[in-house]
Order: sequence, then structure tokens, then C-alpha cells
Amino acid sequence: MPDNASTPTLGQALLAPRSIALVGASDDVTKTSSRPLQYLRRAGYAGTIYPINPRRPTVLGETAWPSLSALPTVPDHVFILTPTADAVDAAEECARLGVTVVTILAAGFSEGGAEGQKLVARLRALCVTTKLRILGPSSLGAINLRHKTIITANAAFAEPDLPTGGIFVASHSGSLLGALISRGKARNIGFAGLVSVGNEIDLSLGEICSATLDDPDVTGYMLFLESIRHGDALRAFAIGAAARGKPVVAYKLGRSAAAAELALSHTGALAGEDDLAAAFLADCGIARVFNFETLIETLPLLRRLPARPAGVRGMRVGVVTTTGGGAAMVVDELAMRGIEVVKPSHETFDRLTEAGVAANHERIIDLTLAGTRYDIMKAALRTMLAAPEFDLVVAVIGSSARFQPDLAVKPVIDSASSPKPLVTFLVPEAPQALAMLTAAGIPNFRTPECCADAISAALLRRLPTPMPKPRDFSAQATKQLDEIAAYELLAKYGIMHAPAVAIGIEEPDVALPFGYPVAVKLLTDEIAHKTEVGGVVLNVADAKQLRAAIRRIAENVGKHRPDVKVAKVLAQPMTSGLGEMLLGYRVDAEAGPIVLLAAGGIFTEIYRDRSIRLAPVTLDSAREMIAELAITRVFQGFRNKPHGDLRALAEAIVAMSQLALDPDVTVVDAEINPLIINPVGQGVIAVDALVALARMEKT
Amino acid sequence: MPDNASTPTLGQALLAPRSIALVGASDDVTKTSSRPLQYLRRAGYAGTIYPINPRRPTVLGETAWPSLSALPTVPDHVFILTPTADAVDAAEECARLGVTVVTILAAGFSEGGAEGQKLVARLRALCVTTKLRILGPSSLGAINLRHKTIITANAAFAEPDLPTGGIFVASHSGSLLGALISRGKARNIGFAGLVSVGNEIDLSLGEICSATLDDPDVTGYMLFLESIRHGDALRAFAIGAAARGKPVVAYKLGRSAAAAELALSHTGALAGEDDLAAAFLADCGIARVFNFETLIETLPLLRRLPARPAGVRGMRVGVVTTTGGGAAMVVDELAMRGIEVVKPSHETFDRLTEAGVAANHERIIDLTLAGTRYDIMKAALRTMLAAPEFDLVVAVIGSSARFQPDLAVKPVIDSASSPKPLVTFLVPEAPQALAMLTAAGIPNFRTPECCADAISAALLRRLPTPMPKPRDFSAQATKQLDEIAAYELLAKYGIMHAPAVAIGIEEPDVALPFGYPVAVKLLTDEIAHKTEVGGVVLNVADAKQLRAAIRRIAENVGKHRPDVKVAKVLAQPMTSGLGEMLLGYRVDAEAGPIVLLAAGGIFTEIYRDRSIRLAPVTLDSAREMIAELAITRVFQGFRNKPHGDLRALAEAIVAMSQLALDPDVTVVDAEINPLIINPVGQGVIAVDALVALARMEKT
Repeated sequence: MPDNASTPTLGQALLAPRSIALVGASDDVTKTSSRPLQYLRRAGYAGTIYPINPRRPTVLGETAWPSLSALPTVPDHVFILTPTADAVDAAEECARLGVTVVTILAAGFSEGGAEGQKLVARLRALCVTTKLRILGPSSLGAINLRHKTIITANAAFAEPDLPTGGIFVASHSGSLLGALISRGKARNIGFAGLVSVGNEIDLSLGEICSATLDDPDVTGYMLFLESIRHGDALRAFAIGAAARGKPVVAYKLGRSAAAAELALSHTGALAGEDDLAAAFLADCGIARVFNFETLIETLPLLRRLPARPAGVRGMRVGVVTTTGGGAAMVVDELAMRGIEVVKPSHETFDRLTEAGVAANHERIIDLTLAGTRYDIMKAALRTMLAAPEFDLVVAVIGSSARFQPDLAVKPVIDSASSPKPLVTFLVPEAPQALAMLTAAGIPNFRTPECCADAISAALLRRLPTPMPKPRDFSAQATKQLDEIAAYELLAKYGIMHAPAVAIGIEEPDVALPFGYPVAVKLLTDEIAHKTEVGGVVLNVADAKQLRAAIRRIAENVGKHRPDVKVAKVLAQPMTSGLGEMLLGYRVDAEAGPIVLLAAGGIFTEIYRDRSIRLAPVTLDSAREMIAELAITRVFQGFRNKPHGDLRALAEAIVAMSQLALDPDVTVVDAEINPLIINPVGQGVIAVDALVALARMEKT
Repeated sequence: MPDNASTPTLGQALLAPRSIALVGASDDVTKTSSRPLQYLRRAGYAGTIYPINPRRPTVLGETAWPSLSALPTVPDHVFILTPTADAVDAAEECARLGVTVVTILAAGFSEGGAEGQKLVARLRALCVTTKLRILGPSSLGAINLRHKTIITANAAFAEPDLPTGGIFVASHSGSLLGALISRGKARNIGFAGLVSVGNEIDLSLGEICSATLDDPDVTGYMLFLESIRHGDALRAFAIGAAARGKPVVAYKLGRSAAAAELALSHTGALAGEDDLAAAFLADCGIARVFNFETLIETLPLLRRLPARPAGVRGMRVGVVTTTGGGAAMVVDELAMRGIEVVKPSHETFDRLTEAGVAANHERIIDLTLAGTRYDIMKAALRTMLAAPEFDLVVAVIGSSARFQPDLAVKPVIDSASSPKPLVTFLVPEAPQALAMLTAAGIPNFRTPECCADAISAALLRRLPTPMPKPRDFSAQATKQLDEIAAYELLAKYGIMHAPAVAIGIEEPDVALPFGYPVAVKLLTDEIAHKTEVGGVVLNVADAKQLRAAIRRIAENVGKHRPDVKVAKVLAQPMTSGLGEMLLGYRVDAEAGPIVLLAAGGIFTEIYRDRSIRLAPVTLDSAREMIAELAITRVFQGFRNKPHGDLRALAEAIVAMSQLALDPDVTVVDAEINPLIINPVGQGVIAVDALVALARMEKT
């Protein structure tokens, strides 16, 4: 069989193939496997389609081919509709023939137990040893509406008049594509393409989206995520999208443990903790929304409000309304998300009065009935949009949006040229007004929750942080440092620690370079949790107690861990500051290097009071992390106590995060717990530290 | 002018008046004050309407009367459309004439500063000295759709074909009525009546709703609340509604401080803390929802799921779906609200198999494509609804709900006779299927958030707790007890305290009945916060230190509060248990007596880790309070520590809440902080206590 004239790119083969083979295409229109041919024909796909069915001469009236190898040319894209085991055979045949992309519909791979894992291994081997790329398995397909390439078995694509536009969708859930299409259509929102990424055993969601970055038809991205997988590819895509000014919005499942478990059982992915995923998305510059409908409704706002660097907050919202109750719902929902609706300045109130707008001096500009007059609403919006105290203005429109839609939304539409974003929430059921706003490109919302969700996602969106250097070591720890070596390594980055001396257990009668009382701790690179083996004695008051403490530690460890040879202990002055925190660093298998700040003691666990960022972080980001924790109020003059040295804490966070940069350092896990917070000017001090290294990988 | 044949009841005059006067009715159809006459005529109101306008002989073609006193009969209901000050004059005239109900549209009263307060006082005086009842001011009116009594100036009632049904709406925001009407209409939901309660200076939301309780046309209530006001009337209504099996659902603003401030500026109400409002609504058996649209969508579910007594949780949800991704959103949202989607039991899986339903052994029953077959979905629902491990079943339907609506929802509708509630979430845009479900009375939802919000509100709904005895004392504290008197009062209710002896500061050389170390504290009924005046010395080791401590306390207090005569101190053994908590009781001006349990120390403030109930509480409710706090994990074997005596803690909560019952006790504020939690079997012990009493009011 002759080759195609040229080998297509990944993007072409995936989303704009010249030819498509449908392995297992059915002649029975009630069968799922009959759908792709129906959809492609109905859409008017212009390329070549090869239905493959060894048991029939024709499929839905078209010539059927008995096998892939019988085809006259190598198809760009093969959609395999056959069951699990057969699908692997077909993929192997595709690899032999030189097919560029194969999409596998069948499930039962990553989630199919040991048998499934064997099949996954066979597919992975194909991708390593040949040029074949695989979408799925468990993918409902890849759709390009402009190219009329409806390669899918998803029932939702029976939709007549599929809405075409600029949005590209990538989803871990294939069935959700239908909900996005139909709900988008009801909102006059159109799509460029949609991909059900399935198990991502080869092509990842990030790589698929990256393949569309330079497609001028694609203006923005909607992601439906079950978890964060293939973090590096996703991050590279997000950075590429930001560089091209194409916004990305994501809805992610698995905020709860129950849903994270579902994601696991469905896809075989290791679902991470949700706040790590949150940090990952934020540092990638991906706007995360929490209401499903907001996923569909947020891109117009993101287009108007560019992402900002960390440290530049700009979270001040102004509200103009004809209905106080309707506006109050938005104010409430915004405040629950930490976004403040700001009262206009005196100057702004003066300008409103000059413009003929009567407004009480309140947090929101409630025009009541007067707001249904074009000139009043227009003047109020113009004044608020020009006021420097707002980063964004929301217009909340009441009954007039239903009864006089053109009159009610005209002042909003006529204000659209403002460089400051203007967002609308319509309080009544008002489909006509919503459609007019969408047509004019004005971000508009149907519920106070979605309105606030989108505003929050847009205002919090940051520019992506730069990609760290690729790691040439695994995320698996293989070697641990003892406490003094850990202090020394961290000190190179500028992290202070309490004075510490090593004492041989055979030479306990040493003169200490600091006074009593001291803490005495087992010093070893073999045991991570010293307390659990009786390796710590606190408040040691004098030399006699020191000798006793050393004996006790040796005995305890001998009892709990007879395999470990106890040679040394460490002595350290007892230190207490204003309070304690936990500062950590870790190379996560999916998200990469991260830094973690948490409340110390039991409160990390009880209240989950912690903040995560991708490493490295800037001083501004470190300050944001500190501000995010509830416990840090304790260090800000709480109950008349002295202020803690939060500047030094921010610098320590930055220093810790630099572990991600040094190519000679293979730290995969580091934890300072506790980190003592001293009063202002006296710094922060590590009084315990754990560091674990990885082995360098062969490159 | 002759009287009416008979004086109407409040409910008749408010919502089914035989005659209505419209004071200030305008002849100009663009004016708000022309609307009530237009709406009443369009609706076909059968009673008598008296437009009152001294400047015109006719209004909109009808005879206008020059004044109220010129009318031939006393109208049942007068709607005053004139501005603020004129409105008071008109109300005074109504009172003189013997009108039953007056509704005042004008604003500028409670929120109108000192001038407004004077006008409010004049209106209040009318209600005290005459039989007149006032709705408002700042009320957009009262509407009874069945009686065609559209007494409102709200533009939303220009709606053609107002949707009539069984729901009664009461709202602090008048403009929101329009949103409820139009959004309800789009969902085929109908209303019996709607009232904009305005400032509630006389008729309160609770009293208005109570007036409709025995109306057979009213089947349920929707409340839009800005804050909790007139708590006693609201509670009495809620108890009445529960007794008649009429469910009540509420959306409440003011979860954030910003929105609470808005409620304040709008209505003059003292907006309480939101968790107090939450406790109030829960103990009233009012289902609280957090998404605006859920307010409109929840009543059908409440009708199917009766409220339960405290202690009977029943929060186990089963999920059947055709789309894993769609179902996972609901699972996630439920879990975020503490509601668990439960994996079916082995027996249930066996029964599913017997019924021909193939299902993976996962937390949700994902039928995928097979679920679009009637017999499969019907069998799955029948089996799940019959399974004892579920309290409620959710059907999550994918694309088939859009493309084959009758087929997709038929198995759901055919399962409606099950005694266990069945709830539906449709993942795609599927208006036809939604309408069919609504017509069949099946609770149905358009978003995963509203679905979970409604389920959570319904499963958490409790039977109202009984109304406490009416208080004949104000909520204002006038007298404080000293610490020993406070211990003695609390001990009568069964609350243990640490041993405590009073020592005269002139006789410091006493033999203590317990050993050292002790705490020494100022003993007085004049100072609430002893620490702030240097009135506490801890860890006093012996008799000599005791003398010094007493001297120090006398000096400190003399310095900080020279007005207070220091006569005595109290000594107490130093006590520490497994940890500390705070237990409080307070008579709130709106909510009445409440009991509060909180994490001790700084964590109450930092993490707002607390639980509130209306007093008195049962042992079951007390256990729920304990379970709600994050900190109580510390007393449940956290990090291998001994378990705390949570049974004794629950008993102490119940004891504290009994303060609400005793008619001879006028405690308005009591706080035990800290309450020491000892290991199991050793009880909980107060080591500080504050009690404040109120003066009895003359009755």
C-alpha cells in the first residue's frame, strides 16, 4: 500500500486529517460504533473515510474494507471502535502501517486491573518503538468543527447545527463534551474543537492543547479536569497559551476525597490533593472556576482582563444596580471568595452627582427605578468605569432586563469600549437580554454564584511562573541527610538554624558552646522521625542530665530500631519565639517542585491551614502565601503580642524554593518543622530539618 | 362614612381584601404609582378599587376620590404610594378611619437617619394605639395570585400569564420578587402569593407567613432573607408550618461581613453573625440553601423528604448515572457539604446483577450507554431505591435527556411512587426533559451545585425545636456575678468546676484545702476581664508566693481600675486536662437563647471553629455540635493521645442550655472559658466562668 504524499503533523492528523479509518464501524444505526461515519457524513467531511468491517461488504451504504492493511493509502487518523483486546491488535497494525494518530474508544485499560495494565504496556511499547501517537484509550474522540472532522462516538454530536466558534475544549470526561456543546449552544457560544483525552497513556491533555496553540481559529481554552496529570506538558501548554494571549479556564473535580477516589477508579491517575492542584493551576496562569456553568461562561471576561504578575493584586470591584437585593447576592458571593466590593471614593460620588446620577453614599450604586433610564445607567457606568479605585465594574440589572431587554442592556453594551472590564448579572429570567450581551462580547451571567465565581477566577489569574529546568532525577527519595548536614545544605540558601553541635555518644563530656537548657536529639541519616523511636529529650538542664539523655536515647533507639547504629547525638539550645510554622519543599511526581508553608503543630492537620506554590517563588508570591494562612494573624499584633519577623519568613520561603533551581542539588523532599518565628528583626530559625535526596538518572 | 359589614382578619385584609384604596394613584402610565391600578384591572380583581388623587377627577379612566375620608366605605387594605412624609399622614388618616391594613411603598424610614426614625416612631405609635397594621415601609406590596389581588408597584408584575400555584414567597427584598416570578415561570413553578415585607416596623415576615398557614392553596414557603429579624415570630411561623407539613426553604444574604453591612444600610436591621442565623434557621426546621436558583427548585424535594429529629442523621446518598463525569460533579459538591455518596452494599450489587444491570463495584452506579435503555435504568433505580443503605437516590442523566427526553426521563418518572426520594440532575441543556420531570413532581436540577445544595438542605433539615417559654426580661445584661457565684449557679445545672476558695486580701495566711501550685484571681462582680487589669497570677507555688500574688493583684487593679474596691481573691488548683474549650450561653435579641461551643484559646478567633444551637438542646444536638468542630478530633485519639470525655462535654452543653428554661433565672450571658476536657471518665471542668443577669421587666 502506498504512503500518503506526506506525513501529517500531530495537529493535522489529530484534528484535521485528510483521511480517517473507522475500525469496527457498524452497519446498525442503533450501535455506538455506527456513529462516527454518520456524524462525519452529516457534517460534510471532505476527506476520505475508510469504514473497516471484515464481516460486511458495505457499512451504511458505503464500501467497507476488510482490514487496515487492505486500504489503498495509509490513513492519517484511525478511530478504533472495537473492544479492549481487539483494539490493541488494531493499534499494533496501525503502528506497522505508519499511521500517525490512533484514537481508542474502548475502556478497560488503566482501570482494568492487572489484565488492563498488560494491554496498556503493549500500547506504550508501540509509542516508544514507533512513531504512532495514541489518543485514549477510553477516549470518546476528537472533534474539529471548522474542519468538519467529527471523529467521535459521543451521542451528543447528533446535535443539529453544532455551534462553531473559537473555543477549544479538552476533557478528562468524554461524556461532558455533550453538556458543554448543548449548554454552549443555548448561550450562543461556539467551539473550534473538542477532545476527550481518555486515559492519556500517550497523548496528554497538555500536548493535545499545545498542538492547537498556533491555530488562528482557536481563541481560548476550556478544560474539564479530573486531576492534574502530565503536569509538565500541561504547564508548557499554559505558558504557550499565555504567550499568545489565549486564555485558559478550567473546572477540576476532586475537591473532596470522595470525588478524588472516583477520578482514581476511572482513569488510574493518582489524584493529588486538591490544594496542590489549585496551586499548580494558579501558577500556570489557568483560571480555575468552581461552578460547572462558569466553565462555559468565563472566557469572554478572561479576554478582557489580562493575567497579572504575582504581587499585583487589583481585586477591587465596583457595583452599579437597579436592584439592591440582586446586587447584594453578588457582593456576598464575591466576599465569600475574598473579593471586596469597594465603596466609591468621594471624588467618584461627586462625579456621579455632576453626571446627574443620584446615589446614596453606600458600597453599591443602587439606582433603583432611575437605573432603567438609558442616560442615568450610561452615566453611572461611565463614571464608575473611569474611577481609579475599581479594577472591574459589575452591572446588576433587574426586571427591565426582562421587559425592555434592548433598553436595559443598551447602556451596558454602549460602555463596552472601556478598557476596564464590565460584567453583567441579570437577576430575572431574561434570555433575550443575555443573547444581546453575548453578541456584544460583554461577559454576562445568569446566577450570582457564576458571576462571582468568574470574577474571582479572572481577578486572581496570574501570569504563569517560568518553567523550571527539566529535572534529570526522579521524584523518588533514595538518600536522607542527617540533621546537621540538612542545616548546612539549607544554610547555603540563606536559611538560619539554631546552633547545633554533634556529640559522640562515647564522648558525652563535652563543653557546649551555648548555655543550658538544651535539646538532645539522635543524629543519623537513617531515621526520619526521631521522636517516634525515643530519639529526642527536651529541657536538658546540665551536663549530668546531658549524659543521662544520651544514654536514654541510645537505649530507646536500640530498642525500637536495633538495625541502626547510634554513634552521635546533637545538642541545641532550647528556643522558643512567638510561634512555630512548617516550611516544606517537595518534588511532586505530577506538579514538579513545590514549596509549602503551613501552621505548625497540630493545626496543619486539624485546620488544613496551608499554602502551596510551584517552586521557585518570588518574594511577592511568598508574601501572598503568608497572607493566605489564617495562623499568621498571630504574628501581626494579635492580642497585643509583638509582631513576628514575616519579612524573614518570606525570605526563608524564597530560599527554600531555590532548591528547584540548582542543577547540582537533587533534593526531592525538605521539611523544616518547626521553623521558629521570632519578633521583627530577629529572623526565623529552623530547629529541626529533614532533607531527602534522589539519585541522578542516567540521561 | 359607613363601616364595612364586618372587620376582615389580618390575612383577609392583607391578601384577599374586599376593597383596596390606592393613595397617590397616578394617571400617568409611565409612573410607578400608576401600576397597582393597571395590574389589579388586568388581573381581573373582583373587589372594589378606590384610586385616591386630590388633583384629578379620574385616574386611568376611573373615578378618582379626593381623599380617604371621602370614600363611601372603609377599605380593607390601603396601598400608600405617596412620598415618605405624606405617607405617614395618610397612614394616620387610615388609623382614624379604622382601616385594617396599610401598605407603605416609600423608603427613607428605618434607613433615613434621625428624620426617618421620627417618622418610624409616628407609625409605630399608630400600631400601638389603634388596630391598624402596617406592611412596610419600603414594601413593594402584597400579591395573591389566586385572589387576583396584585397590590404592588413592582414592574415584574407586568408579566403576562403570572404563574399561579402553591408557593408563598416572603422577601426582605421587594425587587427579588420579580426574579422569583420569572425564573419560577421558566421552570413551570407557580405561586399562591408574594409579599415584600419591607422594613417590618409592624407586620413581620413571620407574622405575615403565619397568616397564610391555614390557607389550603399554600403548599410551601420560599423566604428571601437579608438577616434574621423578629426571631420569635419567624420561629412561631416555622413551627406552625412544620405542624401542617408545609415545607419552608430560605436563602439568606449576609454570609460575608460586606453583605451584612448592605443589609444593615438597607433596612436598619442589626445583621447578626451568619452562623447564628444558620443555627436559628436549622433549629426552626427551615431548609437553608446557598445558591439563588436552589431557592426556586428545592420545595418539591422537601415535600418528599420530611424533616427529622436531631440525632437522626440519614445522610447517605446513592447515585445512578449514564455519565460518570456528570455524576462525579454531584458527588464532589455533595462531599464538600459533608454528604457522603455511599457505595452500594454487596446485597445491592447482587440484586442489580439479578435485575440484569451490569455495574462495576464502585461508589456510583455508572450504567454508561446501557442506562439509556428504559428497562436497565428502571431496574437500577428500583433496586437502589429499595436498598436500605440509602436515604436518597440521585439519577444523573447525560445526553439522552436532550435527544430522547421522554425515553430518558420515563424510568425516573415511573419510579416516582417510591417512598424514598429520587432526585434528578440533567447534565446537558435539556429543557423538555426538565419540564416533564417538573410536571411529574420529581425534584430536578440544572446544575451539580444546585442539585447538591438542595439535597444537603433537605437531608440536614430537622424538626423545629420547641419554642422556649416567653422571656419577661430583656436581652440586656445589667448585673454580673463574681466567679464563685457564677460557679455555684452553673453547678445547680450540673456543671463541674475546679475547687475554688475565696481569700480576703486582708487575711492572706489561710490554709488551702488543696495543694500548690495554685492560680490566684481577683474575685469581684465589677470586672468582667480579670486578665486585662492584671488580676490573675498563675503557678503560685507556696504560701509566700500566695501572699505576694495577692499584693500584686491588689496593686494592679488599683492602678487599672481605681474605682473598684478589691476585697477578695480566689485560689484554685492549677488544672490541665487534654485540652480546653469554650462553652457559652447568651440571650440574643433576635434569635433568643442560644448555646455556643468553640475551640479554646486563640483558635475560636483564628479559625472560627464553633457551633451554635438555639437553647435548650438535647443530648443528640449536643453531640452534633461536638462533631461539627474540627478541634474535637484532638479528643478522639488524635496522634495516639487518650480520648477526652466527650460524653461529659455533651452533658455540660445540655446543662448550660437549660438556663433557657428556668423562669426564675434571668441569665443573659454566661461563658465558661476555659472548660478543661479531661480523659474519658474524668469529666469536664470549668476553671473560669462569667455570668451576667438581666433585670426582670415589668409585665
